[in-house]
Amino acid sequence: MQVKLYDTTLRDGSQREGISFTVADKLKIAQKLDDLGIHYIEGGWPGSNPKDSEFFTQAKSLKLKNAKMVAFGSTRRPKVKADADTTLKQLIDSGTEYVTLVGKSSARQVTQVLETTLEENLAMITESIEYLRSKCIKVFLDAEHFFDGYKDNPEYSIQVLQAAEKAGAEGVVLCDTNGGTLPEEITQAVKTVKEALNICVGIHAHNDTEMAVANSIAALKAGASQVQGTINGFGERCGNANLCSIIPILKLKMDIDCISDNQLKLLTETSHYISELANLVSEPFLPYVGSSAFSHKAGLHVSGLSKWSGSYQHIEPELVGNHQRLLVSELAGRSNIVQRAKAIGINLAPDSKEVKDLLQQVKKMESLGFQYENAEASFDLLVNRTQTGYIAPFELIDFMVVVEKQRRPSAMRNQDEMMAEGIVKVRVDGDIMHTVAEGNGPINALDAALRKGLCQFYPELSAVHLSDYKVRILEQTSGTDALVRVLIESSDGENTWHTVGASPNIIEASWLALSDSFEYWLITKKCKNCKKQ
Amino acid sequence: MQVKLYDTTLRDGSQREGISFTVADKLKIAQKLDDLGIHYIEGGWPGSNPKDSEFFTQAKSLKLKNAKMVAFGSTRRPKVKADADTTLKQLIDSGTEYVTLVGKSSARQVTQVLETTLEENLAMITESIEYLRSKCIKVFLDAEHFFDGYKDNPEYSIQVLQAAEKAGAEGVVLCDTNGGTLPEEITQAVKTVKEALNICVGIHAHNDTEMAVANSIAALKAGASQVQGTINGFGERCGNANLCSIIPILKLKMDIDCISDNQLKLLTETSHYISELANLVSEPFLPYVGSSAFSHKAGLHVSGLSKWSGSYQHIEPELVGNHQRLLVSELAGRSNIVQRAKAIGINLAPDSKEVKDLLQQVKKMESLGFQYENAEASFDLLVNRTQTGYIAPFELIDFMVVVEKQRRPSAMRNQDEMMAEGIVKVRVDGDIMHTVAEGNGPINALDAALRKGLCQFYPELSAVHLSDYKVRILEQTSGTDALVRVLIESSDGENTWHTVGASPNIIEASWLALSDSFEYWLITKKCKNCKKQ
Repeated sequence: MQVKLYDTTLRDGSQREGISFTVADKLKIAQKLDDLGIHYIEGGWPGSNPKDSEFFTQAKSLKLKNAKMVAFGSTRRPKVKADADTTLKQLIDSGTEYVTLVGKSSARQVTQVLETTLEENLAMITESIEYLRSKCIKVFLDAEHFFDGYKDNPEYSIQVLQAAEKAGAEGVVLCDTNGGTLPEEITQAVKTVKEALNICVGIHAHNDTEMAVANSIAALKAGASQVQGTINGFGERCGNANLCSIIPILKLKMDIDCISDNQLKLLTETSHYISELANLVSEPFLPYVGSSAFSHKAGLHVSGLSKWSGSYQHIEPELVGNHQRLLVSELAGRSNIVQRAKAIGINLAPDSKEVKDLLQQVKKMESLGFQYENAEASFDLLVNRTQTGYIAPFELIDFMVVVEKQRRPSAMRNQDEMMAEGIVKVRVDGDIMHTVAEGNGPINALDAALRKGLCQFYPELSAVHLSDYKVRILEQTSGTDALVRVLIESSDGENTWHTVGASPNIIEASWLALSDSFEYWLITKKCKNCKKQ
Repeated sequence: MQVKLYDTTLRDGSQREGISFTVADKLKIAQKLDDLGIHYIEGGWPGSNPKDSEFFTQAKSLKLKNAKMVAFGSTRRPKVKADADTTLKQLIDSGTEYVTLVGKSSARQVTQVLETTLEENLAMITESIEYLRSKCIKVFLDAEHFFDGYKDNPEYSIQVLQAAEKAGAEGVVLCDTNGGTLPEEITQAVKTVKEALNICVGIHAHNDTEMAVANSIAALKAGASQVQGTINGFGERCGNANLCSIIPILKLKMDIDCISDNQLKLLTETSHYISELANLVSEPFLPYVGSSAFSHKAGLHVSGLSKWSGSYQHIEPELVGNHQRLLVSELAGRSNIVQRAKAIGINLAPDSKEVKDLLQQVKKMESLGFQYENAEASFDLLVNRTQTGYIAPFELIDFMVVVEKQRRPSAMRNQDEMMAEGIVKVRVDGDIMHTVAEGNGPINALDAALRKGLCQFYPELSAVHLSDYKVRILEQTSGTDALVRVLIESSDGENTWHTVGASPNIIEASWLALSDSFEYWLITKKCKNCKKQ
């Protein structure tokens, strides 16, 4: 049994409430999907918005090892010639080898929503496919509302698929557009379709009744050979079928080699990477790839796991690039600290008071909102600061930020009226620098003022810039009063490092992450440069 | 076909990472589950922690209309007499009519994890059940690791269930403890069990392979008559089977009257209520009960829905107490705007210049970082502001924020040294209010100052509070310079609304969302009150 993976994160996935990918995001995601071994990447709907057209232009220079890029669009409109239809023209212009055309396969949808005749709908499908075939484009028909249509009027739904086959389609994709179908209904319908057609059949499921994964697997077992879905199940309403669950089910539970073992190990990383680009916190409770998927609260389960790793885990988490987490484990904590300190050249004995104190301090800082998992530079500073003889390269005396908005004559907002000023006083080697700078926001102004002061002592610091800045509100229920965590990514063009700050005050949280970033660079990169001189 | 609903939110559900219910929470949840029509409520494991024992004591005074309260615990330990076993004693003391006993039904788990003989395990189950029966307690056997055990050694797993039946158990519950089983395996095993037993069979599924709901339904179709799960699928690792999906599937897709139609209408409210008590934001993408479950973003879908409500919805959202939402976004067309305006009582013609202008303005605002799909109140204001004769209830003249940090003697951060002050000048009906307030952060200070000014004119505004505050950095690559989007959720204790602000300056972005929140409340709720007077 062979299964082809068809990803629509970039098209249907971006329909999820709150997701809006830039063209650059979409290109990065396509690359990542190719690395994972996805066979078809649906890049978007050219013409539906300028971003998607731009994506297909730029995607031509991607070097995909494995995946085929697919453009998505609708069949020609009613009563319009195929060669005069704008959507079809834009699909051809996208330059992809494959195109997926959405067409209605429910009689009721045709008459009531599309408001045309059943015959015209068949003609729209036939002529659109034939036209694209004449341009040497391979076509999948995305049979919208197939399962709902099949329940009402199975003959017409099958007729639509047969029209696609006759017109030269590569395959048909059966869509549970409204996501309300149950697995047994899927099984029965797919079997009937397989008997009526000779081309490949795909499944496109939505999760409105929490069955998208089950329905996809049911369709594959009934004879479908292409499965459509998205990373993390992103998609409109309750989402699309989640490829991050479907792929490991195929590989590990059904022995279907849709991707290689090494590609499967990229699954967790791919899931988190795409969540990041979507600007979403990775969902911890996701099967296989979530940070809680293999986490165990202390007690019976943890002691069971120590006797037999399979006792409370259905797979080895490493197979999908994830790992086990024991939630209460002081031992695990200590060895992490020892390992990490070693990496920066500080040797600590696991049983030492130093390690115990550090663990205490990490716990204390975490209770204040800090988190070192994604901020190793801040953790390294924490370790350094406990070392006798550590001298910080600068010391903050105080800072001030002023943000002012003058006049706002009407409902329209004019950003030019905003003013942000940062004032910083730092001590370096006994000298005090008092600097002020403007920015387009308070953090930007603080950054500029601190940089202005420090660069007088450390001119090399001008190479350092902030490459990412993230804000997380930690206590979601307490409004503007909430605890704030800021994560900063910095770069000197060669190295990248991450720092963290937390406070109920977003300015202070940002300041802590900012000053950690500079301090970290000064004690690591800078000193190395000095020695070279 | 009759199905009994067994809820374990209070026991297995509370194993979810981050959940910790108080006794008062648990009592409220039990009441809510009873209202919903749940048949069995598993309240906890008395003796495993003092909270659960206290819960059962207090639960005796709950007036449950329908549900039976169940205490959960393990069979007697190996080599201990049933009447000398502490857990069994505590179960009896809990005073419930029903007890669920967990016992191992996997041979390998018995020998490798429990580290006892297969015979002793059977004796533990038999004697524990007999002992509880002698106290007139009805017993369910929770057959731990049943499906994994059944794969390895089906004879022994069945033997365990038969021992329970013989000892007088009311029923057995087949557990997919590790959550890795697929529906077809469930179907086959349940059928075999049904042939071997005469007592009722239940299913307890976990979601580790995203099949918990599918597995539960498969088991019911194969002959099980009790389904265990939790509200919102809360539970260890990836969670338990989600009753908020299972119940509507049974009622609406399979015509099984497990609860009444009116009780089904409480489903969404119950889901949100229990999330609140768990101190979690309600998951918007949950099937049936999520706020996105019936939301529509694509213009095509919205125009389809206006022709036929079933065209892009698998059920009527009102059946489960949810409602449809039309999202306004860059992908959305005119019909979304027309529909949304209609909802606030403004009739716009789809082809009018007004709608075209609004669409242009939405696109422009979105390019500036605003996003209206999660901020309907801000969108409504956008529409209102285009109406001739609209008068805003207040007008901002200017604002200023000062954040200052004094002295920072060492690496340790002392938050007491931080100061944040907000100064606001607003005009209401020709009067100018100039107010200042402190806060623990700049946004909090601005909020306080604005509130102080406006409350002099609109004292009712003091009922409004911010219930959630979210920050998104939009251009991840440009560091502290990036565009910031702020989303605010506000509440007056009765209604909830969402507003948005965007700017490169986080203070301004927050300000815009804040002032929209107050303006929205003033023009909707407040004005309605005025008319009443």
